Amino acid sequence: MSNLEWLQKSVKTIDKKYKTGAENRQNTLTKPPGSLGRMEEVAIQLSAMQESLQPGVDSVYITVFAADHGVASENVSAFPQAVTLEMVRNFSRGGAAISVLAHQLDAHLEVVNLGTVSEQEALSGVIDQRISPATENFSQQAAMNLSQMAEALNAGREAVFRAEKKSTQLFIGGDMGIANTTSATAVACALLDEKAENIAGPGTGLDKDGVKHKAEVINSSLQKHRVEMKTPLDILQHVGGYEIAALVGAYITGAQQGLAVMIDGFISSVAALVAIKINPHVKGWMLFSHVSAEPGHKVILQAMQAEPLLQMNMRLGEASGAAVAVPLLRLACALQNNMATFEQAGVTNKD
Amino acid sequence: MSNLEWLQKSVKTIDKKYKTGAENRQNTLTKPPGSLGRMEEVAIQLSAMQESLQPGVDSVYITVFAADHGVASENVSAFPQAVTLEMVRNFSRGGAAISVLAHQLDAHLEVVNLGTVSEQEALSGVIDQRISPATENFSQQAAMNLSQMAEALNAGREAVFRAEKKSTQLFIGGDMGIANTTSATAVACALLDEKAENIAGPGTGLDKDGVKHKAEVINSSLQKHRVEMKTPLDILQHVGGYEIAALVGAYITGAQQGLAVMIDGFISSVAALVAIKINPHVKGWMLFSHVSAEPGHKVILQAMQAEPLLQMNMRLGEASGAAVAVPLLRLACALQNNMATFEQAGVTNKD
Repeated sequence: MSNLEWLQKSVKTIDKKYKTGAENRQNTLTKPPGSLGRMEEVAIQLSAMQESLQPGVDSVYITVFAADHGVASENVSAFPQAVTLEMVRNFSRGGAAISVLAHQLDAHLEVVNLGTVSEQEALSGVIDQRISPATENFSQQAAMNLSQMAEALNAGREAVFRAEKKSTQLFIGGDMGIANTTSATAVACALLDEKAENIAGPGTGLDKDGVKHKAEVINSSLQKHRVEMKTPLDILQHVGGYEIAALVGAYITGAQQGLAVMIDGFISSVAALVAIKINPHVKGWMLFSHVSAEPGHKVILQAMQAEPLLQMNMRLGEASGAAVAVPLLRLACALQNNMATFEQAGVTNKD
Repeated sequence: MSNLEWLQKSVKTIDKKYKTGAENRQNTLTKPPGSLGRMEEVAIQLSAMQESLQPGVDSVYITVFAADHGVASENVSAFPQAVTLEMVRNFSRGGAAISVLAHQLDAHLEVVNLGTVSEQEALSGVIDQRISPATENFSQQAAMNLSQMAEALNAGREAVFRAEKKSTQLFIGGDMGIANTTSATAVACALLDEKAENIAGPGTGLDKDGVKHKAEVINSSLQKHRVEMKTPLDILQHVGGYEIAALVGAYITGAQQGLAVMIDGFISSVAALVAIKINPHVKGWMLFSHVSAEPGHKVILQAMQAEPLLQMNMRLGEASGAAVAVPLLRLACALQNNMATFEQAGVTNKD
């Protein structure tokens, strides 16, 4: 049983009036026009999304979706599968990178467990929505059945609804799941008709032989499911993962509800690509945070014509790259909101 | 009368022990080694500079050096010379980009007026150290005499001493001065033996013909002073500016005192290059914040083998690019200081 019609529902229209208004304000501020570069761009983009010339991103909501992957048994990750739940505990206790970042940013952090091989005890800040212990090994069969995929997509949708209740100005989704670069790479290859060797990378730390093996597993899996994978949702179901599906659901819901989402790294960007393939106008509600060190990330970003703010050589996932970009958005808003105009400051304008 | 011997005094040695200690700590934290990329690098660098495995950049001191340039009369800027002092007033009243950024970052901001054509009234947060109304027009004669240059270099030195009294963890110098990209370009060309057309750019907004004219003014000025410009200090004196000299003095003093300095954009980077040419080990105390939209900036950065953190297409000066990078340093420190180790978190490590 699954109802996926909501995925196609149109997204909220972005009002050009606020974009123009913000551009005009930027041009009156005491600086050469355009001289704050991308800081101006993001402030203008947030103005349009928030329908306000005084945009803000004080209220940030971060959901990390965690899930295990059957394909981990193909020896495609440098870390053992137990790490997924161990990291969920680490998120809960405040010791992970995203925990530290969320605390520093005063952002709301929650974790959604969509399926870990290890049993989960009650953990503070963790919502237990386990669909199954893990997806199936997609080198053997489809990763999910339709109902499981619908459940994962819906978990993302619910996260955005929870965020809305907290008057969130920016939603960030993150991922945790051993072997999920293998799944994300498979999804990207199928969507973009690429060979795995053009996208597969070391993930958490495979060596050269490991990456080669990973690409072989992906290519043969794609070959196996070739006939069944006709639509983006087919692809997601056959070679995706629960956390990737949840991110897709969150991004589409964000756009439908008119909530800006910021995309993290490789996994998140593949989910963003799926979301855009399902519902193209979703892209208007996305901010792109960083270019990951995972080599295939550039291919995914190009396919979306996305130009992230940062290139910090990060490759951790967990929403960590997006979190690092939050202060830039905040400063961009402060500049647009609080700088003096040429007139206010009595500064002579060009010409 | 001038005493410039202090410029050659050796810089503080950076203790490798803390670098190694920080690297070791990073490798115990719950993430694949290296997966926080440049965030790890800067935290390690700050650890070494601060001789602490718990580095911090809570206390940031920003000094914007403002000065007018005689060469402005050669029609090399898109804005009139009156803007230099008008912007000093804007800094003082909190309306400029750097004022807004400093406020958001809870950083100490001061402005040092080293010479403006317009008379300056008393202004809050502005130190009046005017050496002359402006440098001389270097297309006609040397920009400064030796005593004026010494005074400007010393003004930078004093700013760092003031910063030290406030237990500063990071010093940022900024610049304001109509026509100062012309001066900085001339300095860079002379130091790197480049033609002006390879470095000159639009600055605050020249069109193509304007940039061409600017390059011609620079080339002919360099030709005029060719024989006198033997050392980096000769170059600074003949075609530099007061604010550029002050930044040179600040960067060298920071390194001598063991205080990290973060370099802003084009003007600051040219000052950093002068400082390094005078006293090469100064570079060890520099953090590089961003790649400016001013096209010649890349040439200057390459000459220093500097790899800035950000590329935001900013080109405002005033220390604005460096200020935008401050939150990244703060988050980098928080990650190193507050993340759990594999052992603490009970997370299985690779292998």
